[in-house]
Amino acid sequence: MQDLIIIGAGPAGITAGIYAARQGLKTLLITKELGGQLMKKAGKIENYPGFKEISGADLIKKFESHLEKFPILEMKFREVERVEKKDDFFYVITTKKETLESKAVILATGSSPKTLKVPGEKEFVGKGISYCAICDGPFFKNKKVAVVGGGNSGFETALFLAQIAKKVYILEASEKVRADKENQEKVKTFSNVQVMTKVLIKEIKGEKFVKGILYFDKESQKENFLEVEGVFVEIGLEPNSSIAKDLVDFNERKEILVNLENFQTKTPGLFAVGDVKAGEKKQIIIACGEGAKAALYVNDYLQGKL
Amino acid sequence: MQDLIIIGAGPAGITAGIYAARQGLKTLLITKELGGQLMKKAGKIENYPGFKEISGADLIKKFESHLEKFPILEMKFREVERVEKKDDFFYVITTKKETLESKAVILATGSSPKTLKVPGEKEFVGKGISYCAICDGPFFKNKKVAVVGGGNSGFETALFLAQIAKKVYILEASEKVRADKENQEKVKTFSNVQVMTKVLIKEIKGEKFVKGILYFDKESQKENFLEVEGVFVEIGLEPNSSIAKDLVDFNERKEILVNLENFQTKTPGLFAVGDVKAGEKKQIIIACGEGAKAALYVNDYLQGKL
Repeated sequence: MQDLIIIGAGPAGITAGIYAARQGLKTLLITKELGGQLMKKAGKIENYPGFKEISGADLIKKFESHLEKFPILEMKFREVERVEKKDDFFYVITTKKETLESKAVILATGSSPKTLKVPGEKEFVGKGISYCAICDGPFFKNKKVAVVGGGNSGFETALFLAQIAKKVYILEASEKVRADKENQEKVKTFSNVQVMTKVLIKEIKGEKFVKGILYFDKESQKENFLEVEGVFVEIGLEPNSSIAKDLVDFNERKEILVNLENFQTKTPGLFAVGDVKAGEKKQIIIACGEGAKAALYVNDYLQGKL
Repeated sequence: MQDLIIIGAGPAGITAGIYAARQGLKTLLITKELGGQLMKKAGKIENYPGFKEISGADLIKKFESHLEKFPILEMKFREVERVEKKDDFFYVITTKKETLESKAVILATGSSPKTLKVPGEKEFVGKGISYCAICDGPFFKNKKVAVVGGGNSGFETALFLAQIAKKVYILEASEKVRADKENQEKVKTFSNVQVMTKVLIKEIKGEKFVKGILYFDKESQKENFLEVEGVFVEIGLEPNSSIAKDLVDFNERKEILVNLENFQTKTPGLFAVGDVKAGEKKQIIIACGEGAKAALYVNDYLQGKL
């Protein structure tokens, strides 16, 4: 029986782990992989205070070595199927049908990339369609690629790809891109990046591999074809929030609702932090702060003070 | 006219600065000193994710060099006397009677050490009474000292002083110390540190310098005298919350009440983050997360979206 099981090891789960261990809680950190979205970040991270510029992979390495300081914290690489509560105890069931027990649970399961949901997308995953530029970008050396999404992650992905690909199109459905000024300025310094707004994607075309994108141009009100061999989808994230669906309430985006002071869900002893939790502003440093706070309140909960 | 004035440059204010700058906001960071409580931290910081172990001074240096990346962010070393709002604008008045103008303000003024409020304390400040072990500890080489307060900061101060002083007493008024297990275990490895509970301090005694502490022992119900040359007060912190007192609401601890999603106070455009803000769990990483979030919401506010 653990004091605490933390599910997910992105910035929120790792920080919760550090804080739980420091409080002497017998803690199990269970996760499919280390780092969450951080591992897939194409651009350098420039907004985690203390590191002017660091890659996602390097920051995760630093987090990991920080975690290793604490022998009280155990780590298991598993996928979780569901979380149940009976009486005062939680039962975390993995896809391998193991059942792990604890007195409290922190959900730090993060989010996964949203898909385009247009014809051709599913068929060409791994054959030109990608949700991870840092994983797949190098295959597109000197080729033409498109990044779908004009937010910060779209721009950062484009900046990364601009150094590999011959040409990078940033495709945005609305009238204006949402990336911050710094990213917009940086993109302007690359002559091989072109921003296209009012682009509505209709279909991904190809044979064995992607050959291009059929889209509706809201400006000219015409359908056009953009010839590219790679399509990087960066249109946002979906919370991985279903494993405890009977124990929590959701907002309309399927994010988990919590008490914003202590991050407890409607189920006593069950907490949620980071991207899986309801909230508009999702950042590494914000997720870390939430993980720390939840772990401190878990200790209060275990002592009957919450 | 600034877009944003941030008052205070501890972890919360600095992170707000990084995030404001990255969004292209014309930002002024105004502070008495850099680092806030971090500069006074006696122990190593072991719970800021990414750094297994770092001194407060070194972490602040890293924060500072991170800030210097952003030319849009200006920094001024001043003490702020008060903040006013007229129509839609804020006026930040310094103790030198300068008036600085902005469209939004983030209060990140942190907290200051609580005092004992017993006879002798004020008289002997700088003559044996200290609120900063890292500043004053080295003066007590091979002497007997007391640390007042059995929380984490008291224990960390004692651990720091144990390497300098001949003997360190930790004095705690209640029955049990509140420091976490890790700190309690570490203290046990030092034979020159002694924890005393149920100690109620009555008076600081001395002539030119501190000679000892008169205290009431709640166990024996007797007054005793403890001979020490140094007294380090670590009984908690008080929020530096008075500069905007007409624009905000307070809790009973004089901390500023905010909306916990966006950190806005009751005055539109005025935000509060970190230790000055209401909340039980005060940690570097939590303050950083709050600073980031508030700066993102400031941008929304300036665009009329909050």
